[in-house]
Amino acid sequence: MGGDAAPQIVIEGASIARERLPDVRFLIYGDETRIAPLVTKYPFLKNNCEIHHTDKFVSADEKPGQALRRGRESSMGLAIQAVKDGKAIAAVSAGNTGALMAMSKFMLRTMPGIDRPALASLLPTSCGESVMLDLGANVECNEDNLVQFAIMGAAFARTVLGLSTPSVALLNVGVEELKGNETIKIADRMLRDANLPMNYVGFTEGHGLANGEVDVVVTDGFTGNVALKTAEGTARMIAGMMKAALSDSWMSKVGYLFAKPALMGLKNHLDPNNHNGAVFMGLNGLVIKSHGGASASGFASAIGVAADMAANDLAGKINKDLKLFETHDIEEVEVKTI
Amino acid sequence: MGGDAAPQIVIEGASIARERLPDVRFLIYGDETRIAPLVTKYPFLKNNCEIHHTDKFVSADEKPGQALRRGRESSMGLAIQAVKDGKAIAAVSAGNTGALMAMSKFMLRTMPGIDRPALASLLPTSCGESVMLDLGANVECNEDNLVQFAIMGAAFARTVLGLSTPSVALLNVGVEELKGNETIKIADRMLRDANLPMNYVGFTEGHGLANGEVDVVVTDGFTGNVALKTAEGTARMIAGMMKAALSDSWMSKVGYLFAKPALMGLKNHLDPNNHNGAVFMGLNGLVIKSHGGASASGFASAIGVAADMAANDLAGKINKDLKLFETHDIEEVEVKTI
Repeated sequence: MGGDAAPQIVIEGASIARERLPDVRFLIYGDETRIAPLVTKYPFLKNNCEIHHTDKFVSADEKPGQALRRGRESSMGLAIQAVKDGKAIAAVSAGNTGALMAMSKFMLRTMPGIDRPALASLLPTSCGESVMLDLGANVECNEDNLVQFAIMGAAFARTVLGLSTPSVALLNVGVEELKGNETIKIADRMLRDANLPMNYVGFTEGHGLANGEVDVVVTDGFTGNVALKTAEGTARMIAGMMKAALSDSWMSKVGYLFAKPALMGLKNHLDPNNHNGAVFMGLNGLVIKSHGGASASGFASAIGVAADMAANDLAGKINKDLKLFETHDIEEVEVKTI
Repeated sequence: MGGDAAPQIVIEGASIARERLPDVRFLIYGDETRIAPLVTKYPFLKNNCEIHHTDKFVSADEKPGQALRRGRESSMGLAIQAVKDGKAIAAVSAGNTGALMAMSKFMLRTMPGIDRPALASLLPTSCGESVMLDLGANVECNEDNLVQFAIMGAAFARTVLGLSTPSVALLNVGVEELKGNETIKIADRMLRDANLPMNYVGFTEGHGLANGEVDVVVTDGFTGNVALKTAEGTARMIAGMMKAALSDSWMSKVGYLFAKPALMGLKNHLDPNNHNGAVFMGLNGLVIKSHGGASASGFASAIGVAADMAANDLAGKINKDLKLFETHDIEEVEVKTI
């Protein structure tokens, strides 16, 4: 029931996902009187989903605390409960991010060894896609959080991007070892000293995100959220200005006609719908957040991420790497800030 | 002597600036044997500059501490000294940012009422330009720093953008009052309660940068540096991909030919050279940092920023606003983080 055009987009998205992933089945939580007529429009879906009625929803402007108090019986709460009860392997929602995060954390709890869950997603780069986390779950992070994010991000890249040894970097204001704050310097030392199934390369800067310099970019939720939205905002600004420029004169209109196929490929690569599906990592159960403004195809991408994660045992990978990290004997790290 | 193509770019940039700003005169610090032959190539410049020879330079990879110890006699050190001695109204350098910042701070000291200087610059937005600070001078900031940055940023906007009451916002992960960390929430309350010659609008998100939602975006140096480089990186990625797309087939090449004039206008607006010139704000003297990779025209833009700042009494504006803020009776602000 969440997102800008629910339940239409969600049902249509599920139908698209069903075509892409014939083994997936759906439990759909929400207002049956609105959902059932939609489902009948998609014959493939009809035989592969169960609708569970509830007339309670978490609204877009509901505070996380409010949702926690009164959201257990909501469509969102019931979907998370289905994951907890083992009835579903993942919950996918386009609803209120803060509420989804708070309820997921409260109901599913963090995995052993993970202090805080992180929000991770694929982002388009000039040479493909990279994983970035945390995108906003934690506005303040310590060095342990960052190390755990690195482990979870690498597991994400191995699962969804199919890389055996993904490259991982901490987002910083420079690449030299003495740059940044104390937290990030200690996390850097901890990751350097650990022997994890990743290629830890040190620091990367803001440019590194779009360059695709590394497979996994790790940062705190404040910086990550600002960086993500800055990148999206910049891309949207340029797209908007280009659209205006290309309809500015008859010359540019003609130019656009010829260049359209090439520009569409670019648009496609940058379209957030094709990279939709942010994962709350580090919980005892899979919860995927779709963009509230995602298209049906975008919502299907988010379902695809969930299916990938489940099929490739994301949780198992994270657990294994956490144990590797813990058994590794880390000496006390001391770093001086200049 | 700093930047990727010094002293050529610097001298050519000074000549371009001289054409734009006929009242400006230059003191040029550096290797006379390399500078003098260049200056003679630009007749307008020849009669409006003094070359002061030194064979000491701060190199690009020199640590700030090193530069502080042995840089006083360098071209950079002498240029800052000229500002300190009142011989020059501003120093403009394309050299080592960390060294320039450290030496400027050490030699010029911060203005009364300013705890830490900040690096500020104009950035292109979808509807013009906005001021952003701090872009990397301080990786950790408290609420007083952020308030002082807001005051300095507003003075920048009034000086360079000619706005009487610029809109100012704090960069955050959401616009609601309960978003963000404690520091930013307290700064928000302090700015709301103060009666400053600015239109303080509260929080803005990463999108807000490119949107041009506000005239001044205030943040700590860590987030600001990452956001700036993310925006630049995203713009460069899109430009690169567009270039590739438009030379991909004969169709798109033809399209490009027709659309070229329109696309050039866009390129021009986004070209960092046209927004070059970051200001170290809050010092007893003007120091402007040009991008190390700026073109001659870009270096001239940085000189233009210096001239604007000087002509419009930036320091006087900041001083006045700081006094306004100090006389304003601020009650103890207490904010709870959720």
